[in-house]
Amino acid sequence: MSETVDNTKIYRVELGVRSYDIHIEPDCLGRLGEAMAKLFAAPTRCMVISNVTIAPLYMDVVRSSLEQAGWQVSECILADGERYKTMESFGLIMDALMQSKLSRNEPVIALGGGVVGDMTGFAASCYRRGIPFIQVPTTVLAQVDSSVGGKTAINHPHGKNMIGAFYQPKLVWIDPKVLNTLELREIRAGIAEAIKYGLIRDAGFFEWMQKSAKAALDLNADVLGQMIHTSCRHKAEVVMADETEQGQRALLNLGHTFGHAIESMTHYSTYLHGEGVAIGTLMAARLSEQLGHAPAGTEDAIRGCYKHVGLPVEVPGFSAEQWLDAMGHDKKNVGSRIRYILLRGIGDAFLAEDVSPDAINQLIDSYRKV
Amino acid sequence: MSETVDNTKIYRVELGVRSYDIHIEPDCLGRLGEAMAKLFAAPTRCMVISNVTIAPLYMDVVRSSLEQAGWQVSECILADGERYKTMESFGLIMDALMQSKLSRNEPVIALGGGVVGDMTGFAASCYRRGIPFIQVPTTVLAQVDSSVGGKTAINHPHGKNMIGAFYQPKLVWIDPKVLNTLELREIRAGIAEAIKYGLIRDAGFFEWMQKSAKAALDLNADVLGQMIHTSCRHKAEVVMADETEQGQRALLNLGHTFGHAIESMTHYSTYLHGEGVAIGTLMAARLSEQLGHAPAGTEDAIRGCYKHVGLPVEVPGFSAEQWLDAMGHDKKNVGSRIRYILLRGIGDAFLAEDVSPDAINQLIDSYRKV
Repeated sequence: MSETVDNTKIYRVELGVRSYDIHIEPDCLGRLGEAMAKLFAAPTRCMVISNVTIAPLYMDVVRSSLEQAGWQVSECILADGERYKTMESFGLIMDALMQSKLSRNEPVIALGGGVVGDMTGFAASCYRRGIPFIQVPTTVLAQVDSSVGGKTAINHPHGKNMIGAFYQPKLVWIDPKVLNTLELREIRAGIAEAIKYGLIRDAGFFEWMQKSAKAALDLNADVLGQMIHTSCRHKAEVVMADETEQGQRALLNLGHTFGHAIESMTHYSTYLHGEGVAIGTLMAARLSEQLGHAPAGTEDAIRGCYKHVGLPVEVPGFSAEQWLDAMGHDKKNVGSRIRYILLRGIGDAFLAEDVSPDAINQLIDSYRKV
Repeated sequence: MSETVDNTKIYRVELGVRSYDIHIEPDCLGRLGEAMAKLFAAPTRCMVISNVTIAPLYMDVVRSSLEQAGWQVSECILADGERYKTMESFGLIMDALMQSKLSRNEPVIALGGGVVGDMTGFAASCYRRGIPFIQVPTTVLAQVDSSVGGKTAINHPHGKNMIGAFYQPKLVWIDPKVLNTLELREIRAGIAEAIKYGLIRDAGFFEWMQKSAKAALDLNADVLGQMIHTSCRHKAEVVMADETEQGQRALLNLGHTFGHAIESMTHYSTYLHGEGVAIGTLMAARLSEQLGHAPAGTEDAIRGCYKHVGLPVEVPGFSAEQWLDAMGHDKKNVGSRIRYILLRGIGDAFLAEDVSPDAINQLIDSYRKV
């Protein structure tokens, strides 16, 4: 499944006609044009979609790499942040694509973090009913998680990622060196998503992350590389087994039911996605303990690791009703169920569909009494 | 591939896991709930999406059929017309779906013509990254063409169907009796799409349509039924051979390159889609003659048939530059090509990628000199 040459690692995501490579290599950003020329019969037009933070840092390198390989490049630069992952931004991308008159075989390139990648992928899935797209992730979160697997989306005011598509990229091109310009807070939030693979399916990786988190925060190239490799391997394995989340891919949503509610209740402006997921994971761990699935101390072990990384661990003080509403409980529908990902312990997650609203009330209460 | 019991005809569109039935039967509208109960493990919630013209006529029948079968029904009623096939209407559908909290396995039903079907299908493809949808077409155009095959979309101000997805329905439920309430102009526009199959791949059907058009306009049940059956058979065959329009499915766009330009230049408010396609088909026929592909008289034969049906046959007077711009010619890009569907004769269409802008100039000129 993988091949290593020097510092380069390539994972192949095998999905029949939708298969693609994850290429991980320090300093590969400037060779994107070359790599894309191999994917397409002949370089024609393409569009790079990025944001106001990333474009000033990396657009020049990407553009000249593409132009040298013969591509005619247009750009679409968006505002930065999860609160701009909206229908309005989607409309701006569509306007830019229409203006550039990209045809059905001409690619768009997502140069940025999870927000840019999710929006670009969704736009690529819709424009002319689907054009090729390339992921060039520039944050830890996007490099270890969101750029792989084809989950694309924008947010609805009443729910995160509610409008989207399963739409695979043609290539994921990861240069760990671009993380050097990332803010510490962004690095921490991304590490939370890497830790997630340990919690779900690889206790050894969780232990390694506990030991290595500090070095990752210091941008130690070897540790970052190892963290990205292992995360991409896990992500690729899960996606190949369950592309459209009929089963085990749902486990990757550990911490997300609570985490999305946190993001939504705070209007996507207080927490980064990875921060919301970290807090949500602690809640899922406590719920697992309360329901007798996980041994006592599971939540504390995870909290210890998060604190070590410098992630927020305080659950924000909303009422149980606000939580249930934000998580999509429909009071008129007794039959409506929320799916929670719970833990049997570190490295062993499972899907639970039978969690009662009472259990959630009790969970929320337990935080309010602290 | 098909089975006939009394007046009922069922075509199976075989597309692996995306296979579905086209069920054609007079008076079947009131049995939709029953049919859907067979498709889903247990009736839960569903949403019917329709418009202000169709809902007063048929929503009651559909709703009570669904409720009797155990479904909990919500509704989303849109404005009527191609000029509402917009991002704004798409947003309204998303708001309604969010409010109803439909889960990933609960279906939406498109009750209406091509616009309702295209928008509902696209919304279904995006909401929670895809939920099931059912087509219940209520116009000739939707029954003979747009409800089958999974092409879904909304329009961009600068181009028709530019934002969409290939997303197959789970069932197409056709009741020809609902055509009884349709305006004559809508019937004529739909017949144009039926005639299209004859022009592309079935000269015998073209002859039959010439003879039978009057009876179809008079809503003769046998003739309408035959027209719908034959059209659905052709559509299903083409879609099965080429689901995502890599090859022969493009032939179904006969008349559409010019037709979409007509609709776009007149802001979707002057011509019905089928009317634009009829005029566009005459232009494609004349272009085929001018380029030496089709025998002289081809355009005249088609014009005669359209006149017989009462379809518009006059090409609107825009400049060649306006035409080329509306059809997406990029003047900065010499390499950019528009694909035209041309005719070798009645019943024999092909895809041409080498039509020069000069040939289009000459074609437009030939209409301006008349």
